[in-house]
Amino acid sequence: MSEPAIVSLTPVGFIRSSLKHRADAPRQGSEGAPDAVLQMVPNVEEGTDWIMVGQEIIVVTWLHQARRDVLKVHPRNDENLPLTGVFATRSPDRPNPLGLHRVRVLDIAGKQLKVGPIEAIDGTPVVDIKPVLQSSEDSY
Amino acid sequence: MSEPAIVSLTPVGFIRSSLKHRADAPRQGSEGAPDAVLQMVPNVEEGTDWIMVGQEIIVVTWLHQARRDVLKVHPRNDENLPLTGVFATRSPDRPNPLGLHRVRVLDIAGKQLKVGPIEAIDGTPVVDIKPVLQSSEDSY
Repeated sequence: MSEPAIVSLTPVGFIRSSLKHRADAPRQGSEGAPDAVLQMVPNVEEGTDWIMVGQEIIVVTWLHQARRDVLKVHPRNDENLPLTGVFATRSPDRPNPLGLHRVRVLDIAGKQLKVGPIEAIDGTPVVDIKPVLQSSEDSY
Repeated sequence: MSEPAIVSLTPVGFIRSSLKHRADAPRQGSEGAPDAVLQMVPNVEEGTDWIMVGQEIIVVTWLHQARRDVLKVHPRNDENLPLTGVFATRSPDRPNPLGLHRVRVLDIAGKQLKVGPIEAIDGTPVVDIKPVLQSSEDSY
C-alpha cells in the first residue's frame, strides 16, 4: 500500500494525578476515578482558548504503560469471559494504546485544566482534546 | 520532563470510501457522509473478533491531510465565528490530527468491516477501534 506506515504524535499535555500505578486505576472514569490536572505543553497552550469551565471534553491519551503486542484479551480481566479481540473491548492493551476519556472541565488556571473524573495515571501523555458535540447522535 | 517526547502509531487499517478529496467530505458523519469499508491490516485482523454487525463502534483515524501547525481556527470555517483554540473545536487541523468517528457496523467480511456513515476520505489510516460503551454516561 502507498499509505504511510507510521505516524508520530507529540504530547500536547500530561496528566497529573493522585493515581500513580496502573494497578490502582479504575477501568473507567465513572468507576471511582479521581479528578486530575491536565497540564498543557507550553507551545500549544493557545489551542485551549475557548474551552470553558463546566464543559465536557474528550481527552485523548497515550496509555504509555499498555502492551502493544496483544490482540485478544479477557474483557475486564475476567477469565470467565471469552477471549475477545481488543478492538471489541476498552482494554488499554492494543496495537496503538490510545485512551478516550470523557470528562468535565472543573477549573482552568493558565496552562492547567482541572478535569474529572479520569482513570488515567500520573504522567500519562495527552495527545488530543476535543469538545463533546452537542447533538445527541454525535455525543461521543 | 522525563516523559516520552514522541510516540509512534502504526495503522491497523485504512478507510476505502467514495469520498476522494477533503473538500468533498462533510464535517461530521451525520451531515450526509457515505458508508465506507474499513480494511484491516492483515496481522491485526484477529483484534476485531467479537465485533458484531449492528454494533456501534468508535473508529479512531489519523487525518493524514490535516495541518499540524494550526492552533486556532474559525469553527466550521466560518469567519463570522471568533478564532477558537483547536482543542475547543472538531477541526481536523490540530497538532495530532486524530479523528473520532462513531459509526455502525453494517457488514463484516473477513478483513473488511463495512461501517457508516463516516466522513473520512479514501485512504485515511485507522489507528484504533473501540466499542461504544453501554452505560449512557460513558456513551462516547
